[in-house]
Amino acid sequence: MGKRFMDLSWAEFEKLSYADKIPYFNRGEQAYHAVIAQQFDRGMLDRLCSLATIIRRIAKTPAGTEFLAQQLAHKRAMLYFSQPSSRTFLSFYAACQILGMNVSEVRDASTSSEMKGETPEDSVRTFSSYVDLLIMRNQVQGFAEKMAWLLSSTERPVPIINAGSGKDQHPTQALLDIYTLQRSFERTGGLADKNIVFVGDLARGRTVRSLAALLMLYPNIKQYFVAPEPLQIGKDILAQLDAAGVQYEVTTDFAKVIPLADAIYMTRIQDEWDKDGESKKIDTAKYWFTEQHLKLLKPTGVILHPLPRRQEIAVEVDRDPRAVYWRQVRNGMWIRTALMASIFGREQEIRAYPL
Amino acid sequence: MGKRFMDLSWAEFEKLSYADKIPYFNRGEQAYHAVIAQQFDRGMLDRLCSLATIIRRIAKTPAGTEFLAQQLAHKRAMLYFSQPSSRTFLSFYAACQILGMNVSEVRDASTSSEMKGETPEDSVRTFSSYVDLLIMRNQVQGFAEKMAWLLSSTERPVPIINAGSGKDQHPTQALLDIYTLQRSFERTGGLADKNIVFVGDLARGRTVRSLAALLMLYPNIKQYFVAPEPLQIGKDILAQLDAAGVQYEVTTDFAKVIPLADAIYMTRIQDEWDKDGESKKIDTAKYWFTEQHLKLLKPTGVILHPLPRRQEIAVEVDRDPRAVYWRQVRNGMWIRTALMASIFGREQEIRAYPL
Amino acid sequence: MGKRFMDLSWAEFEKLSYADKIPYFNRGEQAYHAVIAQQFDRGMLDRLCSLATIIRRIAKTPAGTEFLAQQLAHKRAMLYFSQPSSRTFLSFYAACQILGMNVSEVRDASTSSEMKGETPEDSVRTFSSYVDLLIMRNQVQGFAEKMAWLLSSTERPVPIINAGSGKDQHPTQALLDIYTLQRSFERTGGLADKNIVFVGDLARGRTVRSLAALLMLYPNIKQYFVAPEPLQIGKDILAQLDAAGVQYEVTTDFAKVIPLADAIYMTRIQDEWDKDGESKKIDTAKYWFTEQHLKLLKPTGVILHPLPRRQEIAVEVDRDPRAVYWRQVRNGMWIRTALMASIFGREQEIRAYPL
Repeated sequence: MGKRFMDLSWAEFEKLSYADKIPYFNRGEQAYHAVIAQQFDRGMLDRLCSLATIIRRIAKTPAGTEFLAQQLAHKRAMLYFSQPSSRTFLSFYAACQILGMNVSEVRDASTSSEMKGETPEDSVRTFSSYVDLLIMRNQVQGFAEKMAWLLSSTERPVPIINAGSGKDQHPTQALLDIYTLQRSFERTGGLADKNIVFVGDLARGRTVRSLAALLMLYPNIKQYFVAPEPLQIGKDILAQLDAAGVQYEVTTDFAKVIPLADAIYMTRIQDEWDKDGESKKIDTAKYWFTEQHLKLLKPTGVILHPLPRRQEIAVEVDRDPRAVYWRQVRNGMWIRTALMASIFGREQEIRAYPL
Repeated sequence: MGKRFMDLSWAEFEKLSYADKIPYFNRGEQAYHAVIAQQFDRGMLDRLCSLATIIRRIAKTPAGTEFLAQQLAHKRAMLYFSQPSSRTFLSFYAACQILGMNVSEVRDASTSSEMKGETPEDSVRTFSSYVDLLIMRNQVQGFAEKMAWLLSSTERPVPIINAGSGKDQHPTQALLDIYTLQRSFERTGGLADKNIVFVGDLARGRTVRSLAALLMLYPNIKQYFVAPEPLQIGKDILAQLDAAGVQYEVTTDFAKVIPLADAIYMTRIQDEWDKDGESKKIDTAKYWFTEQHLKLLKPTGVILHPLPRRQEIAVEVDRDPRAVYWRQVRNGMWIRTALMASIFGREQEIRAYPL
Repeated sequence: MGKRFMDLSWAEFEKLSYADKIPYFNRGEQAYHAVIAQQFDRGMLDRLCSLATIIRRIAKTPAGTEFLAQQLAHKRAMLYFSQPSSRTFLSFYAACQILGMNVSEVRDASTSSEMKGETPEDSVRTFSSYVDLLIMRNQVQGFAEKMAWLLSSTERPVPIINAGSGKDQHPTQALLDIYTLQRSFERTGGLADKNIVFVGDLARGRTVRSLAALLMLYPNIKQYFVAPEPLQIGKDILAQLDAAGVQYEVTTDFAKVIPLADAIYMTRIQDEWDKDGESKKIDTAKYWFTEQHLKLLKPTGVILHPLPRRQEIAVEVDRDPRAVYWRQVRNGMWIRTALMASIFGREQEIRAYPL
């Protein structure tokens, strides 16, 4: 059992550091509420990744699919997405279906009781009444944390998975990125002693921030941050890397680092966060990955992208086997399946399935 | 078998009194179409409530959940909600899932063929073609009745459940209120010889109107109506109570009646029906239930609310065990499950499940 | 195995004639991607129709329903509808449920990543990652074809069913029309030697165009096209009929052809394609089917309509047994079920079910 949320008011809880919050979210060695990337330690990441791979293999036969669909057939999940998203939404939706869960959804604020003056807390508590799991995306930073605190203080708590809250946290995206890197390096010594290159809008992409932090859990990873000055990685992340003694390099020279890369993590310019169209004034074209760049990349190097993409990766690159961003999409579905199976304690049963 | 709708034109049917319509909606001693609160007699209410409690207990184990999910696994239900609602929608959705029904939905008029000039009658008949049950919410008073009449006159009738039509009928809300009262009084002699206090917007809340009518079926219930003058309960309801010889009191003095209450039914000011912002001019704050009022309430008294709430119940009240409005939400799911099981004739099978 | 899309660029593929494209869509004697009406030959149509009838009969018992729901229980389908539609959407939705498929949906462009500048190709490829079947409706002509080409060139192709693309193709509507005609003539010698009368907006209704073309596969069908001049059937269709030596008549005299008709296919004026309200200026009332016309129609004649209707068929006609447009709605569900079962190779198993 984790610590009891109800012993703290929200004001008290909110002020805690991430490190102090983690025991509330985790129950023993696994996540109960999955709300911040930091709550996953190395052991949890390894278990989730290996579970995802097992699930993927089980799903290859109709009998295996049927076995998986029995795991959570007695559970109901709700996807509460008050921010537009199709990718993350559908990925979770498929993951729920794989485990046989019944799914319902609330996507559009205009169909909700919020119109009638209800607080978001009351709405979420109502939604939680009908289900056994809440998966939520919200524009408000810290919203998923608050709801985890709220529900855990009621008679009928249900686990919460954060599918993205504000600019800050999107923990399952971090999981799928780690899983993709891990799989990409399966034949080249695993996720250790590698050069990981982040490219694009590093200032505003929450995925890069989370991933950079989680990579500190793996030995001897060097991180490269390639971006125009105004979009460079935050000083707070660099301070964390410094504190952990992790090697990194901050640069604007994309072509120079491509040959060094074991993995290149491309990102989209997130101009939806622009205050005044400022990113249009930046020449981002020099940070695009084109067909030419394929020649510079190691034979074992891989290219990731959280998607959606615009022009930052040329479509011609898609057919190169080192372009793994389409596999990354599927990886997201499998790791989310693993996470939910783990939250509901189905890990052992699934691992015992004869493959 | 009930009477045959097809022997009457809609114009003829529409003119009938509720009492004369009931045999068309009911088939023998159970609802077939569930469209008006008045169609439930005392025997039906008792059976539905006890069935709901049995279902709730069966659902406590995975094996029980699986048993329930087999009951209507061969049926498809459609939720046709042309008015915004998340609470009722999700409650029905979960109820369908509990019984294993396949669910589809039509929520947004803009995705519908109504755009192409189709009549609502044709739309509903089309929707009904794909499913075995239609659950519908509509802003038009009497719409569900008309559709019950229409479909029952076709080659392939399907049952209709009214999930709210216009200002008038919301029969499953009345069911869940009755069920919540019944459960709340399980250890205090049941739903008889009790004082039930209605507070707030009693003029426009269809839930209060339906519930006040159904309470006449229980012995020696005294009803109190606490509201500002312009929002008081309708004279037609009082006339019904008079005719039935039921005791009641109409008052503006909230504090005075709290100590007498076995149940307090709080309601929201329904300003969406305002013509000209008139309810903003009323001082409704004196009808709010605050933490202070808890001291006035009997130890066995309970507080209900159909939700969503605004300020009429202070959040601090939530943690008091006499605040049952969150349980009321779950009760709604269980009683709707019971209703659907009953409509499709699964009652006996479910009652026979070994607990 | 069909031909390999990946051996052609999209530009090359797009230029092929329908006849040359068909081997890419079909795999041997059945559809893999179902994107154009022309890809169905007579043998395929006969098999799909008889399969639909078998499925319909199996579905009459709970045991049969359960059997059907196991056929594709290990599959996930996605409905990607970027154009409003409730009828086709719900029909496919029910068909998926009948076969036990897990369904997800993307209906509203505003919830999609297209907002973030993603190409439609990337969106579709992402969606396809989560599922085993994509059913899509799109306003762009040829879109489903392009997506079939795109996905078949990736590591993980999934079949595509075209649920309507632009003004041109809506192949499953053609299937359900053929199925309805076939069933209507079961006791009168089948779909041969019949007079089929098309009425209304023949210029812009893609259903009429597809059906007229498919009817060429049946012996000795005479087609009548009854419409005001500006809405008459396209010259290209007539040229096809001429080339195939099929008999037809183009006329404005509705009353004259009714007595000759074995089937009357009524259509709606599709004024959503109007450039400048031009169809309002046409007197279409003389092409409406009224209660009076029933007397002119053969006892064995039938009236079809793809729905939604406006005034072109009087509501009073609905109760006549020769009005089969409501059955047509159900037929659509069954033939789509048959199509999906066939795509996934379940035909033999279903035909072997003991009835």
